[in-house]
Amino acid sequence: MKLFIVSSLVATAGAWTLSPTRLASFSPTTTSGTSLSALKPGEKVTLIGVAADSGCGKSTFMRRLTNIFGGETVGPLGGGFDGGGWETNTLVSDQTTVICLDDFHANDREGRKLTKLTALNPKENDFDTMYQMLSDLKNGKTISKPIYNHVNGTLDTPETIEPTPIVIVEGLHPMYDSRVRDLLDFSLYLDISDEVKFAWKIQRDMEERGHSLESIQASIEARKPDFDAFIAPQKEFSDLTIQVLPTQLAEDDTKTLRVRMIQKEGVQDFSPCYLFDEGSEIDWKPCGKKLSCSFPGIQFKYGSDTFYGNDVSVIEMDGSFDNLQELVYVESHLSNTATKFYGELTQQMLKLADAPGSDNGTGFFQTLASFKIRELYEKRAAANKAKEKVAA
Amino acid sequence: MKLFIVSSLVATAGAWTLSPTRLASFSPTTTSGTSLSALKPGEKVTLIGVAADSGCGKSTFMRRLTNIFGGETVGPLGGGFDGGGWETNTLVSDQTTVICLDDFHANDREGRKLTKLTALNPKENDFDTMYQMLSDLKNGKTISKPIYNHVNGTLDTPETIEPTPIVIVEGLHPMYDSRVRDLLDFSLYLDISDEVKFAWKIQRDMEERGHSLESIQASIEARKPDFDAFIAPQKEFSDLTIQVLPTQLAEDDTKTLRVRMIQKEGVQDFSPCYLFDEGSEIDWKPCGKKLSCSFPGIQFKYGSDTFYGNDVSVIEMDGSFDNLQELVYVESHLSNTATKFYGELTQQMLKLADAPGSDNGTGFFQTLASFKIRELYEKRAAANKAKEKVAA
Repeated sequence: MKLFIVSSLVATAGAWTLSPTRLASFSPTTTSGTSLSALKPGEKVTLIGVAADSGCGKSTFMRRLTNIFGGETVGPLGGGFDGGGWETNTLVSDQTTVICLDDFHANDREGRKLTKLTALNPKENDFDTMYQMLSDLKNGKTISKPIYNHVNGTLDTPETIEPTPIVIVEGLHPMYDSRVRDLLDFSLYLDISDEVKFAWKIQRDMEERGHSLESIQASIEARKPDFDAFIAPQKEFSDLTIQVLPTQLAEDDTKTLRVRMIQKEGVQDFSPCYLFDEGSEIDWKPCGKKLSCSFPGIQFKYGSDTFYGNDVSVIEMDGSFDNLQELVYVESHLSNTATKFYGELTQQMLKLADAPGSDNGTGFFQTLASFKIRELYEKRAAANKAKEKVAA
Repeated sequence: MKLFIVSSLVATAGAWTLSPTRLASFSPTTTSGTSLSALKPGEKVTLIGVAADSGCGKSTFMRRLTNIFGGETVGPLGGGFDGGGWETNTLVSDQTTVICLDDFHANDREGRKLTKLTALNPKENDFDTMYQMLSDLKNGKTISKPIYNHVNGTLDTPETIEPTPIVIVEGLHPMYDSRVRDLLDFSLYLDISDEVKFAWKIQRDMEERGHSLESIQASIEARKPDFDAFIAPQKEFSDLTIQVLPTQLAEDDTKTLRVRMIQKEGVQDFSPCYLFDEGSEIDWKPCGKKLSCSFPGIQFKYGSDTFYGNDVSVIEMDGSFDNLQELVYVESHLSNTATKFYGELTQQMLKLADAPGSDNGTGFFQTLASFKIRELYEKRAAANKAKEKVAA
C-alpha cells in the first residue's frame, strides 16, 4: 500500500464520523425532539441504502442528502444525548430518517470478543430483524429498533422510529442480505480506495485521536480480509457508486482526489447524469482560456464502462475547485442533473461550503447523487399518488 | 520517411489537380463563357489567399468553396480549352473568381531549365506584377493577367479578369510577399504532412500517370529543401490552416486521416469554431452507445495551442464517417460554424459527397472553412455597405 502524506488532507477528512456527539453540530438550527412530518394517508416510504466503511464520509453525505430533503431541521432523534435525549445513531430531518445499520449488530462489543469476529462479518449482524423492521417501516408501521451504542459498545434500550417519506439506511451491509436489498428503492456505495482510506484514517485516528501509525496500519490490515469478503462485493448491487481515488493529474500529489460517479444503466426512475453528449466518451479540461485554475488543474471524464458485471456510465472529476465560478461553469455542461433550476447544484454546494470535500469531486458527486435521489423519490411519490387516485 | 501503402487511398486522392481539362467536370451545369456578376457600385473585392503544394487537394477545396458562394455555375473562365476558349487556370462561379498564382511565374519551363531553380523559389515568381495586379483587382479595376500553361510549360497570351465580389488566389506563395499578403482579407494554408503527401503523389503520379516509385521519391526529395525554405514558413501568416496527418487511432492504418483545423485567434471578423465549450480542452469519441462506428472509429479533439508563434484554437478529427447521421450528430456539437440553418454543413457535404475526402476531416474542415469565409465576406460586405451609406 502506498503511504500518503496526510498533513494536507485536513480539510477533506475532518468530521466524517457519525458519532452522536457530533450530530449536534449538523445544522445551525438543531432541534430537541424534532417533530417529524409523518406519512400522509396513502403515502409510501422510499427506502435508500448507503453502503460504506466507517470514516468514509457517510455522515457528510447524510448531511448533504438530508439538507436537500429536509431543509434546516436536521438533528439526532429525540435531541440526542447532548440534547437531553438518549444515545442514538438515528438522524432525522423534516421528512427524512437516517438509520445506522450498526443498530442491528448481533452482539455487543463484549460479545464479539467471545466470537472473535469483526462487525464486518455477516454473522455479527442480525439480518432477520433488520429485514423485518425495515419491511414493517416500508409498510408504514412504527418500529421499536435496537440501538448499538458506539461509545460503550453496548446494545441499548430500543428507540421508536416512525415511518417518514424517505428512510435512509446506512452502514456496512445494506445490500448484503437479498431480502433487505429487495426492499431498497435505490442503493449507493461509497467506495474509498485503500490509499485514500488509509490517509483519512491516519488523519482521524492518529492526528485527532492520538493512535499510533502502526496501530492504524494493523487495524486496517486486520479488517481488510473481511471487508473484501463481505462489504466490497455489494458494489455489484449498488445503483450509484462514488469511488474516491488518488489524483492522476500530478505525481506525489497527496491532497488532490480523483472521484468517479458510477451510475448503473437501466434502473427505473434513474437516468444517469452525463457530460456534454450522452453515450459518447469525453475528456474535458475546463481550465484554459476562460478559466484559470491552479495546479494541477481539473480534469473531467465521461464514458461507458462495466462495473461488477453491470453496464454503467461514469462521470469522473480529478482535481479541486478554486472558486464558485468554476462550479456553475461545470454544472452548466452537465445534463440529467435533476436540479430544479439553473445553478441549484452550485447553490447547494455553497450552502455546505464548510463541509469536507466541498471543493472536490466527493462533495460534487455527493450533492449530485442527492439530487438524483430526490428526483427518484418524487417520481415514485407521484406514481404512487396516481395509483391511489385510480384505486379511489 | 514512412512508406504508405496507397491502394486504399483511391477515394481520397482522385482528381486533386487543378488542370484545365478537369475543370469541365466540376459541375453538372458547366457553362461556356460564364457571365459573371461583376461588382455592384460601391461593392469591394474580398481577397482570399490559399497556399498549398500541388496535389494537395486545392482543386477540391476550390470546388467546395465556390459551391457555397457560387451556386451551380462553376467553370473555367471563357469556357476553357475544351469549351472552345483558351487554356486557363482561372475558375469562375456566380460571384467568385479563383486565380492560380502559377500564372505569375517569372519564367516558362524552358527558362527554369536555364536558371536551374524550381518554381518554389521566389526568384521564379514575379511578385511585383502579382502585387500590382491583385492590388488593381481589389480596387475594382479589370486586369490583363498572364497565363502559365501547365500543359506546355509556356507563358501564354494574357486573359482579362474582371473584379468579382470574392477573389481567391491559390498557389505556392500567396503569403510570401508582404505586399501581396497585406492585400489578403483572409488566408488559408493546406498543410499536408510528408507521409500523406507521399501517399497521394504515388496515387496520382504512379497509378494514374505511370511514373515510377523511384522517380516520385526523387522528385519529392528534390523539392523538399525549397518547399521547407519558401512555402512552409507561410504558415506563420495563415489565419486558418488545415493540417492532414496519418491517423493515430490504429497502427499501420494507411487509409484513415487525422485532420486538424488550426484557427488563429484575434483575426477580425473571424471567430474560431469550437467543440462543446469554448476555451476548454476536449477529447470526444462520438462512437459509443448512440452511434456504432466501424473500426477504428472517430476521435475529435479541441483545445488551445500555439502555431508558428501565434495563439490558435484547434479542432481535430481523426477517422472517417460511416454515414450521414454521424455528420449531423457531429455538426450539432460544434459552435461558431457560421452555418445559416441547422444541418447546413451536413447538407453541403452531401451535395459534394462524391468529392475526395467527403468522408473524413479534409472534406469536413474544408466545408467548415468555406462557411467561415462566407461569414467573413458577408460581415465585410455589410460593413462596407454601412460605410457607403454614411458617406452618401
